[in-house]
Order: sequence, then C-alpha cells, then structure tokens
Amino acid sequence: MNNLRKKVLMMTMAAATLSAIAQQPVDYVNPIIGTNGMGHTFPGACTPFGWVQLSPDTDTIPHNVNGAYQKNAYEYCAGYQYRDKTIVGFSHTHLSGTGHSDLGDILLMPAVGDVKLNPGRADYPEEGYRSRFDHATEKAVPGYYEVILDDYGIKAQLTATQRTGIHKYTFPKGKDGHLILDLVHGIYNYDGKVLWANLRVENDTLLTGYRITNGWARTNYTYFAISLSQPIKDYGYKDKEKVLYNGFWRRFKLEKNFPEITGRKIVAYFNFDTANNSELVVKVALSAVSTEGAIKNLHAEASGKSFEQLAEAARTDWNSELKHFEIEGTPDQKAMFYTSLYHTMINPSVYMDVDGSYRGLDHNIHRAEGFTNYTIFSLWDTYRAEHPFLNLVKPGRNADMVESMIKHEQQSVHGMLPIWSLMGNENWCMSGYHAVSVLADAITKGVFSNVDEALAAMVSTSTVPYYEGIADYMKLGYIPLDKSGTAASSTLEYAYDDWTIYQTALKAGNKEIAETYRKRALNYRTIYDTSIGFARPRYSDGSFKKEFDVLQTYGEGFIEGNSWNFSFHVPHDVFGMIDLMGGEGTFVQKLDELFSMHLPEKYYEHNEDITEECLVGGYVHGNEPSHHVPYLYAWTSQPWKSQYWLREILNKMYKNDINGLGGNDDCGQMSAWYLFSVMGFYPVCPGTDQYVLGAPYLPYLKMTLPNGKTLEIKAPGVSDKKRYVQSLKLNGKVYDKMYITHEDLLKGGVLEFKMGASPNKRRGLSPEDKPYSLTNGINQ
Amino acid sequence: MNNLRKKVLMMTMAAATLSAIAQQPVDYVNPIIGTNGMGHTFPGACTPFGWVQLSPDTDTIPHNVNGAYQKNAYEYCAGYQYRDKTIVGFSHTHLSGTGHSDLGDILLMPAVGDVKLNPGRADYPEEGYRSRFDHATEKAVPGYYEVILDDYGIKAQLTATQRTGIHKYTFPKGKDGHLILDLVHGIYNYDGKVLWANLRVENDTLLTGYRITNGWARTNYTYFAISLSQPIKDYGYKDKEKVLYNGFWRRFKLEKNFPEITGRKIVAYFNFDTANNSELVVKVALSAVSTEGAIKNLHAEASGKSFEQLAEAARTDWNSELKHFEIEGTPDQKAMFYTSLYHTMINPSVYMDVDGSYRGLDHNIHRAEGFTNYTIFSLWDTYRAEHPFLNLVKPGRNADMVESMIKHEQQSVHGMLPIWSLMGNENWCMSGYHAVSVLADAITKGVFSNVDEALAAMVSTSTVPYYEGIADYMKLGYIPLDKSGTAASSTLEYAYDDWTIYQTALKAGNKEIAETYRKRALNYRTIYDTSIGFARPRYSDGSFKKEFDVLQTYGEGFIEGNSWNFSFHVPHDVFGMIDLMGGEGTFVQKLDELFSMHLPEKYYEHNEDITEECLVGGYVHGNEPSHHVPYLYAWTSQPWKSQYWLREILNKMYKNDINGLGGNDDCGQMSAWYLFSVMGFYPVCPGTDQYVLGAPYLPYLKMTLPNGKTLEIKAPGVSDKKRYVQSLKLNGKVYDKMYITHEDLLKGGVLEFKMGASPNKRRGLSPEDKPYSLTNGINQ
Repeated sequence: MNNLRKKVLMMTMAAATLSAIAQQPVDYVNPIIGTNGMGHTFPGACTPFGWVQLSPDTDTIPHNVNGAYQKNAYEYCAGYQYRDKTIVGFSHTHLSGTGHSDLGDILLMPAVGDVKLNPGRADYPEEGYRSRFDHATEKAVPGYYEVILDDYGIKAQLTATQRTGIHKYTFPKGKDGHLILDLVHGIYNYDGKVLWANLRVENDTLLTGYRITNGWARTNYTYFAISLSQPIKDYGYKDKEKVLYNGFWRRFKLEKNFPEITGRKIVAYFNFDTANNSELVVKVALSAVSTEGAIKNLHAEASGKSFEQLAEAARTDWNSELKHFEIEGTPDQKAMFYTSLYHTMINPSVYMDVDGSYRGLDHNIHRAEGFTNYTIFSLWDTYRAEHPFLNLVKPGRNADMVESMIKHEQQSVHGMLPIWSLMGNENWCMSGYHAVSVLADAITKGVFSNVDEALAAMVSTSTVPYYEGIADYMKLGYIPLDKSGTAASSTLEYAYDDWTIYQTALKAGNKEIAETYRKRALNYRTIYDTSIGFARPRYSDGSFKKEFDVLQTYGEGFIEGNSWNFSFHVPHDVFGMIDLMGGEGTFVQKLDELFSMHLPEKYYEHNEDITEECLVGGYVHGNEPSHHVPYLYAWTSQPWKSQYWLREILNKMYKNDINGLGGNDDCGQMSAWYLFSVMGFYPVCPGTDQYVLGAPYLPYLKMTLPNGKTLEIKAPGVSDKKRYVQSLKLNGKVYDKMYITHEDLLKGGVLEFKMGASPNKRRGLSPEDKPYSLTNGINQ
Repeated sequence: MNNLRKKVLMMTMAAATLSAIAQQPVDYVNPIIGTNGMGHTFPGACTPFGWVQLSPDTDTIPHNVNGAYQKNAYEYCAGYQYRDKTIVGFSHTHLSGTGHSDLGDILLMPAVGDVKLNPGRADYPEEGYRSRFDHATEKAVPGYYEVILDDYGIKAQLTATQRTGIHKYTFPKGKDGHLILDLVHGIYNYDGKVLWANLRVENDTLLTGYRITNGWARTNYTYFAISLSQPIKDYGYKDKEKVLYNGFWRRFKLEKNFPEITGRKIVAYFNFDTANNSELVVKVALSAVSTEGAIKNLHAEASGKSFEQLAEAARTDWNSELKHFEIEGTPDQKAMFYTSLYHTMINPSVYMDVDGSYRGLDHNIHRAEGFTNYTIFSLWDTYRAEHPFLNLVKPGRNADMVESMIKHEQQSVHGMLPIWSLMGNENWCMSGYHAVSVLADAITKGVFSNVDEALAAMVSTSTVPYYEGIADYMKLGYIPLDKSGTAASSTLEYAYDDWTIYQTALKAGNKEIAETYRKRALNYRTIYDTSIGFARPRYSDGSFKKEFDVLQTYGEGFIEGNSWNFSFHVPHDVFGMIDLMGGEGTFVQKLDELFSMHLPEKYYEHNEDITEECLVGGYVHGNEPSHHVPYLYAWTSQPWKSQYWLREILNKMYKNDINGLGGNDDCGQMSAWYLFSVMGFYPVCPGTDQYVLGAPYLPYLKMTLPNGKTLEIKAPGVSDKKRYVQSLKLNGKVYDKMYITHEDLLKGGVLEFKMGASPNKRRGLSPEDKPYSLTNGINQ
C-alpha cells in the first residue's frame, strides 16, 4: 500500500467513524477515487448534474503546442492529479473522467503578500500565485472541498449550486489578502485559446464578465457574475498580450482601478481588508447566455445564503440522489458503490439559465420550453450504460437529455444529433452516431414519448453523407478502409445504431423506414471475414485488408480497440454474430481466450486509453467497446462464465483508491457499468427493454424506483468464492431467463439470488431464456 | 476643372435633364460629394438612419501597424476614395464622414474565372479578386448604386433596407460566376482585428454567420443572414490563419462543401450556374444580436421582394425624408442642399432588430420598449448642429436617440452617457461629455420629456472622477495641464456642458443641482488669461502655461484647435466671454482677425483634420470647435459681419464636387451646419430654444414642419453680392431680434428677409434683441 493510498483510506475511515451514528449515503462517497492517473475525475465541489464543478487545478498542460503532442497533457483532463504538490487555483468547470480536456473556466486564487499575476511552474511555485498544499489538509465530499494553501496560510473551502461556485477563504490573521481572477487560465490552455475576455467591476462587491474560448468546445461562451462578501479596496489587472489597437481607451490609466477591462489575456487582482475581516466569501455564477443571465442565476441560487447553508444544501441534494440505494457491504464496497453513483450524476450537466435561456448549437439563444437543457454528452461512451442507468434511476433527467439532443439536431447545420456535445458545441469526438441509441432506449423504456420527432432526428443523423463514411456505408453496406481509418469499427457501430432506428421506426409504425434500417442493422455482416471469424475491414473494391492482426489496436480499421474486442460489437444480433464467428463452440472459445490471453504491450503501447491496469486478459475494460462483452455468454450454453469474469473485472477495475478506476470514468460510463454489474444485470443492447443477467456483487441492495416502488436484490453470502448464481426468484417465483425486462423491474419487488461456489450449469439454457437477438442466424 | 470633377458634374446634369419633367428632391442628391479627399463620405446605398450602408470599398488601410501610424489610412474612413481605380468589393457598414475608421463588415465580391481568395493590391488588381472600374459606369443616388466591374464584365447593383443590403449581379453571358465572402475584410483591417468568425451554409440559398471584431468599436458583434436567388453549386473556403487547435473537426474535408466554417481569417467562395442564369440577387441582413435576429430582419424587410422593388422603396423612403424641404436655387445649390440633408440622415443609425432586440453597451441583449435604439453618436461633432437639426426636422428620431443615450448610460459600468457610441461600444473618441447637451436641447425643445431620468444620467456622467480630469475640474474649477493634454479645451467644453445640466436641473425643479451646475458653467473663467484675452491652460499650482502660442494647434492644451479658435467656446455665456476678452471692441477685433488672418501651415501641418481647404483665415471650418463662431457677432454691435462671413464659408466649404466638403462630414455635423446656415439661423447654444440669425443663402425655402405646418424662408434676390439682411418680417411683422426661437419656428409661417448689397448696420443692436447669455459680464 503506498503512502497516498494509505492517507485516503485513513480519511475515509475517519469519516466513517465520526458519523457512525447516522451514516448517510453521501458520507460514503469518496470523490478522491480516480483522481490519480487514469480516472480523470476531480475532487472539487459540485451538485447533481450541475453546470459548475468548482475544483482545484493542480496543472494544465495543452495537448499540443505548435502541432507537437504533449503526452502528459492527457492526465490533466480534469485539471487535477493527486500526486501533484501545488494548486494553481480553483476553476469552475470540469469534465468528469473524459479522455480529452477542456474547460477550467474562471480561475480564482486567494493569496497574501506580493501580487503575482502568473501561475508559476509546479517545481517553482514561488514564481507565481500557485501554492503548495498537503493532502492531509484536504477534505473532499459531495458538494464540498477544503484545503489549506500552505504558501499563504489560507484555508480555502468550496461548495456549489447548479450554476454557482461558492468559495470561502479564511486569510491568516493581520494580513491583507488579495484574490486573483485569471481569465487566461484554462484546462488545455494553449496559447490563443482565449479569443476574447471582458471584465466589469460593477461595484465594489460585484464583478461581471465573460470569455470566449476556442478549445475542444470550438466556440465556448462563459459569462460570469461574481459577488464578494467584502468590498474591494483596490484592484488592477495585467493584459499579457495587448491587442494591437485599443483605441481611445489608452487615455485612461486602465491598469489600476478602472472598472472595465477587455482583451485576450487578462489577469486581474482584487485587494481586500482581510487584516480586519479574515473571511471572504466569493460566489461565482455562470451563464452561457449573458452576464445578465449569470446575475439571474446568482440571485436565484446563491444570494442571501451563507457559505455553510449552501454547503449543507449541496450535501442534502447529493444525499437525496444517493439514498435511492441502500446496500450492504464493506466500507470500501460502500465507498465504491456510492462514489460510482456520484460519478454517474456529474455529467451530463445542466446548460441553461434559471429562466430557461441557453445558447444553442447555432450560437443563438434559445428558450427551453418544458424541459431542462443539458450538455456534455460523451455518447460513444455513455450510450452503453450511463443513459440506460439514468432511464432506470432518473428517467425525468434522461428524457430532458433526449430532448436536449433533439434540439441539438434541430440547431445543427448538418441535421445531426450530438456525437459529443460540449457547452453548446459539437466536438465530433469518437465515432458512430450513438445518440440514436439513447433516443431509442428512452422510447422503448417509456421515458420519452415523442417518437416521430425522435425518428426524424435519427434518420437525418444517419444519412449525412459526409459524416465518417456514411455515403459509402449506405451504398456498399460498409465503410471502405481506403476511405476511413476506422472503417471496420464504424461499420459495426452504425449497424447497431441503425438497429435502434429500426426499433424506433417500428414504434412509429413507419414500415418503410423500419425495413430500410432493419437491412442496415445487418450491415455488420459485410465486414465479417468468416474464414477467420473476426470483423475485418474491406476496401472499396470489396477485398479484405490483406495483412491483418486481430490483436493490433493501430492501423487495422478499428478505433480504440482491436478486432478481437470489436468483433463482439453486434449487441443487437448476437446469434447472427455467433454464426459468423463459426457457431457457439468457436464463439465461447473466443470469449474464453479474450479474457484469459496475455496481450503483449506492443498491441496497445501507444494508446493512452489502454494500460495493463485496465486489461483482463485481452479484454480492455478501461475503454468502452467491450463493456457488454462479459455478458455475451448469456446467449450461449455457458452463461455462468459471465458470473466468473464479471466479478474479476469488478474487483480489478474499481477500488476505493486514488488510482481506483481502471480507466477514464468517461462521464459516468465506467461507473454506470459498475452499478449495473453490482446489481447483477446490464443493458447489453440499449433499445431493447432487456437487461442481461450477470450476478449480484453485494449481498443486499435496495433501490427505490422513480415510481416509488422498491426493488430488492438479495444475494446472501455472495463473495469472490460464492460468485455463481445457483437459482433466482423474482417475487418468489423461480426465474430462469438470462435477462430481466425494464417493465419487470419497474414493478418492484424482490430479486432473490441463491449464490454458490460452483456454477449451476443447467440454468438459462433453453431458447426462450435467451436475450433478444435480431435474427437467429445469418441466413435469416 | 479636373477630369474627375467634370465627370461628376456631367453625371449630375444628365440626371437633371432626364428627370426634368418631375424632378423630386431625391433626384438632386449627389452621394459622390465628398468622396474624394477629406469628406469621408461613401457613395453606396443606404436608407435614412439605416443600419446598412452597402458601398464599394476601394481600399482599406489600417491606421497603425505594429505601432507605426500610416498616414493615408485616414483617407479610408468610409472605405472609398474617388481617385482609386479598383473596387475590392461591397461591404455592408460604413461610417459617414468620420475622422477615424472602422466597420466595412461582411464583404461580398462577384467574379468570374479563377477563384481568388485574397483582395490583391490596388496597383496589381489581377493578384486578387478586386476589379478595376470606371467612374463612367458608376451611378450613385440615394438608396442605389451601380458600377461595372471591368475585370469581370459584371454589372453590380446595390440597394438597401434599414437592416439589409441587397446586391444584384449580372454576370457576363455564358460564364460561371462566383461570389467571394470575405470575413477578414474590414475598414481599418489590421492583422488581428477579427477575433472570431463563423459561417454556416444553412441550405443552398441561405447562409448565416457572424464575426466579432476588435476595432474602433472594441468588441463588435456582426451577425448576418444571406439569401441567394440562385442555388449554390458548390463552395469552399480558406482559413488564412488556422487556429492552433481545431479538434476533431480535422476528420472532415472542411475546405470544400462543408457547411460550417469557423476561424479567425475566413474567406469563402460560392459557385453559381450563371452561365444559364446570369442574374444573382443577394440579400444580406445584419443583426448585432444573433443570426436568428438577422433572419428575422431579412424576412421582415427584404424577403419576397425583387431588387427593383427594394431599390424603388429605398428611393421613396429617401424622398419622403427629403421632400420636407422645397428650395429655389441653381442645380449645384440644389445638389448641395439635398445632399447635405441626405448626409444628416445616415448616422446616427438604427441599431436593433425588427423585434426591438439590441446588444447594449454591457454586451447583454436588451429589448427596446417604446423606442428605437440608435448607435453611432459622434457627439463632439453632432451635439452642435446635427442633433439640433434633428430636433427641428425629425424630433421623434432624436427623442429615440436621446433615449438610446440614456440606456447607454444605464448600461455603462462608468455610469456615463456616450462620448462616441459605435455599434454598442464606447470608443471614448474626442473630449467633453456633450451628450448632456443633446439631452438638454431635446428637453428644452419639448422633444424629450423624461427630465428626471435625463438629469440623473447627466449628473452621473459629469461626476465620474477618472474621466479626463473631472476630479480636478470639480476641485479646482479647471483641468490642470500637467494632468491632461487637452486641459484648456476640455475645461471650456465641460463648462458649456455643465450649463446644459444647469438648464435641465431648472426644468426638473432641482435647485440644488441647478446651483451646482450654474457655478460649474462659469468654470470657463478659470482658464481665461485676461492679460492676453484668450483661454490659456493652467497648471495644478494655478500658474498659466508660460510659453504659449495662441495659434498653435499642438501642445498648448487644446484638442484639434488652437486657443484663438477655442477661446470662443463659451456659447452659453457670450457676454461673459466678451468681458474676459477685453470688452466688445477687442472681441470684434479678434473675430475679424480670426476670419481674415493668414494662418501659416506650421500651425496645423500635422493635424489631419485641418488643411488649407478648410480654412477661412484662421477659422477652421473643417473641424468643429468653431462652428458657432461666425454667429458670435450677433452679441455685438456688428451682427452684419456674420452675414458676410457665413456666405464666405458656405461658398468655400460646400461644393457639388467629389472634393466638395471642406473637411470630414462628421456624421452629418458639417451638413447640418450647412442646412441651418442656408436657412439663415443656427443653434449657437443648444439647450436654449434660440437659433441665432445669420442670413439665408437661397431666395426661397419651404420646410414642412413635423407638426404639419410649413415655414417659408424668403430672401428674394439674395446672392453673393446681396448677402446682407436689410430687414426681416416674421409673419408680416417686423422682427429685429438677432435670434428666433424654436417655439416661433414651430408655429410655422413666413420669415421674409429683405436682402441688400450693403449691411444694415442698425439692426439688432438693442440689448433685448441679443441672444441668450448666462450672465451679462464676469462680475455677475
């Protein structure tokens, strides 16, 4: 156990001891999980699905500088690495668990002594305004973060509302403090990221302003309103890159006590009489619409309330979301469970003002009528389990997310649903058009009802000819490798996506569209090479790629995965896939080999998303394409093997530790996988109403469903040893199917698993016990 | 007569001949006046007070590059110099007659042949998309402009609505044409002016987009919607300065037929099948709010109407504004008169969408309730005669302009009325806070009624301590020269401005404020050096500047003027000023000397606003501070001298010629001076209801007043020789006062001047005939 890990565990245990009397779900959450290494989570304060994630940034490194890629930039997607020894400051927006970075908007840092207007470097913190800190002084719980800034002796406490970050700084006695507002700072802070920034000192306790950045979000408008509990004594700023022309403004002494500041690289400071009043509370409200919107948000959410009231409200908000689950387990299991739940509710995030105004994809200001607008849709990841999870636990939120996606499509000049929506921008990250899956799943599960509107958006999205090979795909049935580097994986992804459109067309009663997309859903067949039993990219002339390595991640026509993993990506027609792989025997053999092989490092050494830590054999859990694969045994005569491998993955990939996530959390997808798998079932094919059964991880779990009913999942005696399902009863009746439906779950009741140390090899074998498959074989 | 001038005259005469049958006021306007040299007017198409001025740009040169001032940049304030031989393209926003440059937004240029995406240089037009042209093919009338682009054989026709520029391009037979949309182009196009630009190809006949620029308007948002009469065949673009990071957009072939383009330096092209259909009509609507706003403006103003219908509507709009005046005079006099009238109605300009939304000074989107929002307030110039002129002829417009200024103050973080309002920005150009004069004048003349709101804005504006010496001014009664390079002129300007606040406080019944500002209005006295009889800057210690040259424009404490001119700037207390100058005898002698002296070039050689052409003796008409000076004889026993010098100025400074303006038209100020002076009276002291009488310039003028009554001004036989007023009758009664009131004018009727070749030296001599003066001498 390394020192860092020891500290975290001690903190958790201390917390557990203190509140043993009335331990609430919120008390189990450990936001530090995943903050070191690959998890890309952040420790700061936020509210469920809130716009603001107010968190310390320990460094910010641009991904590339003048075209040169900087390797460790990847580690700063959330602005924080636990191993770091300094804090640059506290910024208001953070992505949770992504594999690409942006945001870190509106950084504040308190300080005493000389005013420094640059952050300084990690190894030379005294160069700038950053400060050293010790994790021993750090406390991170849902909605609250605190730390001592050692260089200044300042105690920093953070909390948040949906749209407001609240800072409380306690300055050392007798010293005059200042506050740095760095409008240059950003995660992914390449030179030139800030297109324009503006700051107004409205009065001595109110600042407003905005900045426009060109980052992963191509044009990101962040307006703010900052209220201060103490009047500013005096203030000033530095413009680190003066614009060529600043007109007749030059007649003013702009640098000192001039209330209006505009430019590309503005860092401002504000001095306070903290010698007499050591506490400074700063409330920072955001808006993507206007400073007027930010002020509205500030007033609606944070004005007139003390820091302590707001921190308590954030804690209560989190607890009300988390307490839908009651579980039995070890402290580590509880920490992991509730932290996972916490991580499923950070992104997607609300993206509209309290009055419903929001900035759309077309940069126009829209009014959300009858729904809440969301952004941060990491759909290549989250269509798999995050959105299905929300359909189960937060259907109202997911319905609004679906509506937000449809509005995105309507505002898109391409007529496309989001691929990766980021602060009202499309960043086109990753492949497929998986928003269609989210829409179909929400419709299938009765969460979203405007089927015609959804279908129109889905059809439009899936027929944009210039998007990643769609024109060829529609003509040839596959994307040729000579046209796209991800030809094979995208073909597989489109085929599944098209199946969700087929399902939706059936719901809409539109037979013509249904038939079109039923055929498209079978396109996965076009790139299966039955001679090897794997997916294999083809060229435009129809020939398969000649030199071909099914284990290689690079250059073989797949994105972030090799053919071995990706070939299983036919969640909507598993029987068809089994046939193409050579029948059940070969199929099970391939699955077995996947989980037990040794994958040499050369196959993933250049992929930042794949490390030894996230591998189980050749199965890559740290990246998403295989997340459903452990469940595929359900379609075979050896479903018990899922039960074995799932527990292996759960144990290896999820730990109550700074390094506790076996890969980027990816906006809740890794966590949602965990939660489903802990419950004992998983949505292998979103768009069906089926969850495929694995095995429960904990002896007891009770979920309060959105309709008020409860679902209990009992697995007495379950353990690493007793991991196999012997039998299952649903509300007292023996249940032998390998899936359970959403409809059944919503009825509530009890799922009672009998667990054992050896598999029951006779369960779930008959055809009617098997989960959904579009066909029963390739000849259908 | 040079060739250029000859051509213009021929054009005018030809037009006059053609429409002799039913010549309308609009037919007399010659937009070419002032388009060469110093006038800084533009020849293109616009509507009265419209947002859009669609006009050819012949070049655009930044004022300074890397800090180095470029002399001839000044000449391109309106984007056009008549002497130039090439047209770069047609852009949609132009300032009329300013002495600083900006705008030139959204440039379109049609072409055939190779697609060129840079403008090329004037001497090498074939390098770029610009084209040679011949003035013989040019036609410029109100609301309409046409020209043949020689390099392409394309006929370009332009017209406009309030918010939309309409282009009609006729391509040569059988050639495929294209359209360049240059989002880099701008007047004052320094490198880096464009902060961000966006373009969306919504469909094959609709483009939307916006750009944000940092120019004289520090942060200028120009959104647009462009409708095309022909579908685009294909299109593409070049980004001349790729942003460092453009994320996953790189997966697309962005440069060709990709419908969304964003960056700093975007030039796009669109190809059309003009071989089959040679006419292309392009409608470009602007908004400062959003592309949605631009589309609304497009639909409300231009959709469903042919180019010809819109051109005719623009002509009709202009004619309805111009026909309030009927005059007798020579064709040149009529051209000059109606062109001046035209020039008073270009700026200020409407700055809101058809639905009342506009971008305020705080960059928030506001809704104009019950008024029309305007921008482009060149107040150092226009408070003098332009706004008073609008009070007389367009009081509704001026009331809305006043409301727009008050809203500006309310949105200002400084709490200041506009100094120079430009597209929702304050550019701080020139000195004083003369918006207060505009407010006071509108209140005095019954045009604006919310006195309390106005007074609050005026007091707030005049007490901002960090604005150009106000703190010292309030403490010492003057601005010390050691604090400001314009200490003396600003003190004089503030004193007059403060008098207008005094007047408004009286109206509001607020005695305390009135008394404060009455005292401030006398502050002009603090910097009069009675030993020399001129204004002279003082230092903080009270001492006068020692080395002092009353003729020198530079370094003596005055802005754009010397002490000799500026010392007369006490329009609100002429008698007090006369005393300080040493009594009437000395005063008249100084006036006489001003108009008749020879001013050596060394006194103005570095001032771009003063040239030999704009001088009458040492009187500088091309610049504003002395505009009221010729009327100051009215307070003396020799008022007839005004009549002499006014006609000198009118003759010398205003000509129906490309070089016809004796200085920048300054957003209508020069033209409004002309119109008042032609009528025979001038608002020497805006804020009083008095117009000081000079002498009519034309034998007959009839004005239809806003209340429907008519005012006739008769001066039979007036000529350069018979320039002196012998007597005056107002509605048949002898009228001997040296002023006439606004109230009297509004009653309508006839002002009948009897003119003669020798002055009547006995008129207007008694004290009751004299115009307003705050005091009758310094001891009061």
